[in-house]
Amino acid sequence: MGQPSRFVLTRKELNLKATDIFSDPMKHFLWLDRMVELELAPISGINVGAVGLGSSDDMIFLGINVELPGLPLHHSIHAVQFLVTNLALNSQRFLRDLVVSSNDSTFDAPCGHCRQFLQELRESPIIKILTKNPEKNENEYVELKSLFPRSETLILPEDFPVPLLLQTRNNGLTLTGDICECDDSCTHLKCRALAAANKSFAPYSKCPSGVALRDCDGKVYRGWYMESVAFNPSLGPLQAALVDFVASGGKGFEKIVEAVLVEKKDAVVSQEKTARMILETIAATNPMCVSNVFHC
Amino acid sequence: MGQPSRFVLTRKELNLKATDIFSDPMKHFLWLDRMVELELAPISGINVGAVGLGSSDDMIFLGINVELPGLPLHHSIHAVQFLVTNLALNSQRFLRDLVVSSNDSTFDAPCGHCRQFLQELRESPIIKILTKNPEKNENEYVELKSLFPRSETLILPEDFPVPLLLQTRNNGLTLTGDICECDDSCTHLKCRALAAANKSFAPYSKCPSGVALRDCDGKVYRGWYMESVAFNPSLGPLQAALVDFVASGGKGFEKIVEAVLVEKKDAVVSQEKTARMILETIAATNPMCVSNVFHC
Ligand SMILES: [Zn+2]
Ligand SMILES: [Zn+2]
Ligand SMILES: [Zn+2]
Ligand SMILES: [Zn+2]
Repeated sequence: MGQPSRFVLTRKELNLKATDIFSDPMKHFLWLDRMVELELAPISGINVGAVGLGSSDDMIFLGINVELPGLPLHHSIHAVQFLVTNLALNSQRFLRDLVVSSNDSTFDAPCGHCRQFLQELRESPIIKILTKNPEKNENEYVELKSLFPRSETLILPEDFPVPLLLQTRNNGLTLTGDICECDDSCTHLKCRALAAANKSFAPYSKCPSGVALRDCDGKVYRGWYMESVAFNPSLGPLQAALVDFVASGGKGFEKIVEAVLVEKKDAVVSQEKTARMILETIAATNPMCVSNVFHC
Repeated sequence: MGQPSRFVLTRKELNLKATDIFSDPMKHFLWLDRMVELELAPISGINVGAVGLGSSDDMIFLGINVELPGLPLHHSIHAVQFLVTNLALNSQRFLRDLVVSSNDSTFDAPCGHCRQFLQELRESPIIKILTKNPEKNENEYVELKSLFPRSETLILPEDFPVPLLLQTRNNGLTLTGDICECDDSCTHLKCRALAAANKSFAPYSKCPSGVALRDCDGKVYRGWYMESVAFNPSLGPLQAALVDFVASGGKGFEKIVEAVLVEKKDAVVSQEKTARMILETIAATNPMCVSNVFHC
C-alpha cells in the first residue's frame, strides 16, 4: 500500500486542468498508448481505457481492461470496473465524468455489463459520459440514465439500508478465534485481507470477502468483493486485488507469490475455489497460492 | 435428447394463441409460479422468468434464472440467457417478442448484462420487449435498441464474417486421433459434447467448446459455449448444459454423475478448470465429474 499509482494522475502530471481531459480527447489516448505495453489484453488484443473524475478535485483516475488467459471470459475485468475499483481503493466517494475508448479516435459508451455495474453507485443516473452522437458525429456528454432506460426496478431505492459501493463502510468482521494486535500499517497478508473484507460491498449475498497478495519483491496488494444487484457483473475480491497490483506498478501476474483470502465460513457465495483456480492459472509458478484462507 | 421440455410450451398447452401471453400477463405468472418449486435461486430467493417467441410459430420458450450456491455470482445464468440457450438447443433461428418478470405484477426490462448478451442475435435491435412505461404506468412494447442506446460500436456489422448466435453453424471440429463411427443418435457423452462444440458460438476467442452430462437416470444433456463481444456476459458450455438439464426435467444438480468437455487443445479460453470446479461444487456426490476432457 502507499505505492505510487500509475493509474492515478494529478493535474500537474497531465499539465492541464482535471476537466480538460474530457475536452481534449488526445490526452486520453496518450496514456492509453502507454498502457498497451502492459499486455493486459492477451485474448482480444484490444485495450480499452477508462478515465474518470472522483471526489478529489485534483486527481484523475484511470482504468484498463484485464483479460486472464487460460480462463473463460467471464473472469475478465472491464476498464470501467477497473476504474471503479481504483476509485474505491483510493477512498473516492463518487464517480463524476467518465470517458471510455478502445482506439485513438472515438469514445465508446460503456457496454451493458458496465452500465449495469455502475448502478451500484448512488449517483449513477447522473454520471456524465462522453460519447459520440452518431447523428451529429460529434462527442457530447450524456447522463448514464439516458444510456440505461427503463432500469427503474433495477436501481436501488434512496432508502436502501446499506451504504452503496463507494460509500465508507466497516463490515465489522473479525477472524475466528484470532485476536490480532496489529495496527493498520502492518503488511501481514491476513491482516490486509481482513481489512479489505471489512470494506467489501456485498449487500445482496451478505458474503463479504477480501484478498491480499504479495509479489516476489515483497510488495502487498489488496482488493475487496463488490457486488452487482444483477449478480453476474459483480467483481471478485481477487480481481479487485489484481487491479491494485496493476495500478501500483506490478507487471506480470506470475510474480504473485503469496495470497490470502478472508471470507465468511460456509458462505453461500464463496470465493475460495474460484480465486484459487484463477491464481493457479495466472501465477503458475506458485501452486501454493491461496493456501491461506481465513474465515470470519 | 428428445426429452419433453417443460420450458417449451405449445399454444395448446397454454390454451391460447402464442402471442396472447404477451397481452395477458397472468399467463406469464402462472408458469413462473410453477417453476418456483425447482428452487433454482437459492442465493437471492428471487425467481426471474423470461418468455419469448422464436422462429417456430406454434411454440413458446421459457427461461428462468439459475444460481449456483457455493460459488461467486458471476457463474449464474440469467433468465434471458436461459431463454436464448433454450432457443439455441431447440434450433430456433431468432428471438421475437420477449417478456421478463420477477414477481406477479410487473414486467422488467432486461438487466444490462442481458441487454449486452442479446446483442449477439442478428435481429437484436428490433427484438420487442414488453415493459412498463413508468410515465403512463402501463405495459408497452419497446424495441431493444431503445433500451440500449449508443451501442453502435458494440453491435456487429451486417457483414460480420461468422454466423451469429442463433444461426446454423458447424465448427468442423474432430477429436484428435479419434475416428468415431457413431451417428447423431448415439448417447456417448464424448460424441454429444463434440456435436455441441461444433455448434458453439465463439467468434471472439475462436475457442469453441461443448459439454455433455449424464444423470443418475441415464438421461443425457448437452450445451455449448456462447460468447459475447463484451466478454463477461458469455455463457459457458457447462451452464448451457445445465439449462438443458433443467429444461428437460432434471431436478437437483447433485444427480449429475458424469460429464464430458470437448474443447481445443491449449485453448487460450479454456473451460476445463472452471467447469470442473463448478461441477465439483454442485454435483458434490461425484468428484469424478469432468474426468473426461477431450481435445480437438
Ligand atoms: Zn464493460
Ligand atoms: Zn498484522
Ligand atoms: Zn439479466
Ligand atoms: Zn457415439
